[in-house]
Amino acid sequence: MAGAGRKGLKLALIQLAVGSDKAVNIRRACEFISQAAKAGAQLVALPECFNSPYGTQYFQQYAEPVPDGDSSVALATAAKQHNIYIHGGSVPERDGDKLYNTSVFYGPDGSILGKYRKMHLFDIDIPGKIQFKESETLSPGNGVTIIETPWCKVGLGICYDLRFFELAALMARKGVDLLLYPGAFNMTTGPKHWELLQRARAVDNQCFVACASPARDETATYVAWGHSTVVDPWGAVLAKTDEKEGIVYADLDFNAVDNVRASIPTRQQKRHDVYKLEDA
Amino acid sequence: MAGAGRKGLKLALIQLAVGSDKAVNIRRACEFISQAAKAGAQLVALPECFNSPYGTQYFQQYAEPVPDGDSSVALATAAKQHNIYIHGGSVPERDGDKLYNTSVFYGPDGSILGKYRKMHLFDIDIPGKIQFKESETLSPGNGVTIIETPWCKVGLGICYDLRFFELAALMARKGVDLLLYPGAFNMTTGPKHWELLQRARAVDNQCFVACASPARDETATYVAWGHSTVVDPWGAVLAKTDEKEGIVYADLDFNAVDNVRASIPTRQQKRHDVYKLEDA
Repeated sequence: MAGAGRKGLKLALIQLAVGSDKAVNIRRACEFISQAAKAGAQLVALPECFNSPYGTQYFQQYAEPVPDGDSSVALATAAKQHNIYIHGGSVPERDGDKLYNTSVFYGPDGSILGKYRKMHLFDIDIPGKIQFKESETLSPGNGVTIIETPWCKVGLGICYDLRFFELAALMARKGVDLLLYPGAFNMTTGPKHWELLQRARAVDNQCFVACASPARDETATYVAWGHSTVVDPWGAVLAKTDEKEGIVYADLDFNAVDNVRASIPTRQQKRHDVYKLEDA
Repeated sequence: MAGAGRKGLKLALIQLAVGSDKAVNIRRACEFISQAAKAGAQLVALPECFNSPYGTQYFQQYAEPVPDGDSSVALATAAKQHNIYIHGGSVPERDGDKLYNTSVFYGPDGSILGKYRKMHLFDIDIPGKIQFKESETLSPGNGVTIIETPWCKVGLGICYDLRFFELAALMARKGVDLLLYPGAFNMTTGPKHWELLQRARAVDNQCFVACASPARDETATYVAWGHSTVVDPWGAVLAKTDEKEGIVYADLDFNAVDNVRASIPTRQQKRHDVYKLEDA
């Protein structure tokens, strides 16, 4: 990979300990962003529902409009202040009488480069383990969001979207080299699937995958798995943390994307004469 | 899962030490099949190229027609003799002037229930590690093969096909609960991707995945990774061996397929209004 020409990206994932005070969540997120920026991070990513406890009973109370809500204003200000890109994990977004689980991506001038509304709502029922029904209060998004950055195109998903390989593949087909999925897996699906799904999406699409989780709070109604992770395009874990609050840094060398795609050229070997995966 | 109604299947994967003598390979495969049948296996699966060393320089010499070749005759006889189902891993198949990497699936009466020709040929070039170009001598198959068995529909793939999530998803959509991929991963891709891809296909499609490899032969021109593996529909490794010759047994409880699909109902949550994966 020596001598190859693509720009590297220093990425930081903030594994925030999200509490019940929205203003405190936003303030602490901004403090971590500042810390990461000072450490040289060029893109800082927050976890799913970084400003709100995760739970259908909370979304209405913590929701806000984008871009005029407190969270958006704070993150736009932070992006501009530090001259960095910020992926705002997600927030409960209010739009009219509907709520969404929404990621907002900010450029270094504080502008919004794109917004993604979670497309696959988290409705599961594992008997004796966990029951959750996001669709009780949230509406699903209906569109794919890809962000242009100086390093590469970045594809956005949220948490449960990780299970839907079609979405990741569609974004990879459109030129994405980095997939970001803020996610709050739980104590049942976390150990089983959190890392597996990230590695699967990375190796399927030969791209980087990065997932910021909230820190684990054993007292919360929904206990997050933590373990924010960055996976490289070979499917190997590049950086990962445990369940506690903190920052995960990773240096992404996008030459690795080109190398794996040249070495194992599955993108040219698809059998579009047998199957087809397309926009609907 | 107590009291649930689906029939269990005792599966055996034969991790055969394949050598250069075709007749010996076939005879030894049949000996292992006999051993597995006596141990109660109802479906016995052989590895990729069980009758031939793996390498483009060998395929022409070891190839045979299906169903009249020695390997097919021997496996049909063995299936009938033991009253079991046999998945014949794969053989180099000669059809006119073309060669294919072909799986044949035999019923307990010795009949052929289906045949699959590898659809994604193994052409890779990882600099300094491994270069291989199956397409130098093989032609690709063009069709999906699904076998009806008393337990479930079984979908067939071979080795490199594991990387193409579209094929697995298409078969799962058509009702498959077990995917069989005989495969000879190597010392580079084996440790990186063999288990990961199996677990990925299992969790994506919420089905069993079983992959029989040849045993490792350090003196061969192509050194197989071994590690024949069975993965359950939650993506967990149910049974697995090391690199040496042997048999991997697994008891497949298909109630687990129904349970995971009810618990995490991704099949009903696909966004066919956003993406579509279909037969071409």
